Amino acid sequence: MAIMRMPLERRFSDLDLMGHVNNVAYHDYLQEARFRLLAELGRETVEALPQVVARQEIDYVRPIGIGLEPLIVETWVESVGRSSYVVAYLILDSDGSLAAKARTVMVLFDEATTRSRLIPDDVRSWLESAMAEEGTDGDSRNDRLPGEAEL
Amino acid sequence: MAIMRMPLERRFSDLDLMGHVNNVAYHDYLQEARFRLLAELGRETVEALPQVVARQEIDYVRPIGIGLEPLIVETWVESVGRSSYVVAYLILDSDGSLAAKARTVMVLFDEATTRSRLIPDDVRSWLESAMAEEGTDGDSRNDRLPGEAEL
Amino acid sequence: MAIMRMPLERRFSDLDLMGHVNNVAYHDYLQEARFRLLAELGRETVEALPQVVARQEIDYVRPIGIGLEPLIVETWVESVGRSSYVVAYLILDSDGSLAAKARTVMVLFDEATTRSRLIPDDVRSWLESAMAEEGTDGDSRNDRLPGEAEL
Amino acid sequence: MAIMRMPLERRFSDLDLMGHVNNVAYHDYLQEARFRLLAELGRETVEALPQVVARQEIDYVRPIGIGLEPLIVETWVESVGRSSYVVAYLILDSDGSLAAKARTVMVLFDEATTRSRLIPDDVRSWLESAMAEEGTDGDSRNDRLPGEAEL
Repeated sequence: MAIMRMPLERRFSDLDLMGHVNNVAYHDYLQEARFRLLAELGRETVEALPQVVARQEIDYVRPIGIGLEPLIVETWVESVGRSSYVVAYLILDSDGSLAAKARTVMVLFDEATTRSRLIPDDVRSWLESAMAEEGTDGDSRNDRLPGEAEL
Repeated sequence: MAIMRMPLERRFSDLDLMGHVNNVAYHDYLQEARFRLLAELGRETVEALPQVVARQEIDYVRPIGIGLEPLIVETWVESVGRSSYVVAYLILDSDGSLAAKARTVMVLFDEATTRSRLIPDDVRSWLESAMAEEGTDGDSRNDRLPGEAEL
Repeated sequence: MAIMRMPLERRFSDLDLMGHVNNVAYHDYLQEARFRLLAELGRETVEALPQVVARQEIDYVRPIGIGLEPLIVETWVESVGRSSYVVAYLILDSDGSLAAKARTVMVLFDEATTRSRLIPDDVRSWLESAMAEEGTDGDSRNDRLPGEAEL
Repeated sequence: MAIMRMPLERRFSDLDLMGHVNNVAYHDYLQEARFRLLAELGRETVEALPQVVARQEIDYVRPIGIGLEPLIVETWVESVGRSSYVVAYLILDSDGSLAAKARTVMVLFDEATTRSRLIPDDVRSWLESAMAEEGTDGDSRNDRLPGEAEL
């Protein structure tokens, strides 16, 4: 599957005083994209696993105004570690121009001990199926994301 | 003034399905803290200047549940550049335990050209008055924040 | 045009602790529907006029869960007065079942005096073009809405 | 206890494009006030009971701007029926002027059958303790609320 490309509706309530989509609303978009990515991967498997958002980083590239055409969010799994994985995103305005790029670190945890836990094999394979290819596209995207040193 | 320490009310609507303050709501807290910091510094001066959020990063350290006691948000200016400045935050649960640490890069821009602009001297001095001291406290806080290499 | 029937995406963030779309989110849906109705009618004309929400009433008929299929919101102008008009809505779940019915009273005002003002003729004709027909459909819908006595 | 009078913080994110607290945010305030009223009444008893919002109505009396002083929300139980009860509210701006008045109908239901259920005696007595007195204050407040005919 690699990169999931999903349309996402703006809402009037996403705007702030300045008439732009407020910086907080972008995180709502990221959450929605992540939710749909997990649903796509088989919610029963991935969502049923207790996990938390451990870290987020976002670069706002260009402001987004209101509009009836949906935004486009591209979402993929960037890496899978022992107990965590990284989801990466590009938020594109309806004309295709880059509006923001972001990353989320998700950590699986054990509800009994509330400590992080290993990613089970079946979940790992789901997640790996959503990793972006190392091809031209993947490379150019990585260039547009904050470098590894930042994580 | 250095570090501004403000109580901030949680709302029932900040909770998600899991019964914790949702990761998106933290960004609402950061915006609120930043808004009040700027108000404290003299809104006329700083808020009147067109500026945008250019980057945010947040580490979620410990989940926050619902509660009637306010959270505490500590906010300060970490650095002031030529056309941008960095606001840093600690979000503490009502018992004082660290729940999240975050940073926002703000960039001033010129409305006519929509390009970044130099921070005027009077704004710079306001912002510098909100920079945290380099003392013990400042040091230990910096230790708890993502290192410089990450920015 | 009469009744506008629009699909509307749910978001994960619309859910509350109970796993249902929170009662507050319904008002976000109403605002969005109203916004799109006005956009459809020619935003330049209607949105440019200063107006405020004067009253809202909503009956929650059946809870809404999460889902990837959009909700359907039916929106129309129920009546046009001298300085106010009434927008009516049905929120339908993605399977077509009625989830909520609502009404908003909008009032036009004059920015200089901040008092209500007469609806100009051109706006009135736009609004009237969005009034639901008095046919079978209109009748049955009215039956499903709170009666006139309630307004 | 009768009328509960609670301060409630505005947030920058409650504002919309027009610089006023958006109509949707008022419903967040109502939910928060209801949540705190139930917490005050003994959350274990009342909140543990499955209940849903069945109806809401709100009159927006005067716009609310941003401000660092909290709003005041007055909340009380207006009536208790067999399986439902009505919560009434006044939202006051920080200067004490009336900004909105509202009512919510809550219905208790049985999770097994998903049908409405009788209010148990202990809950009824909690709720009745939050009913406003029939004194001068109560009377004048009722005058400021939409009349019974509207419900």
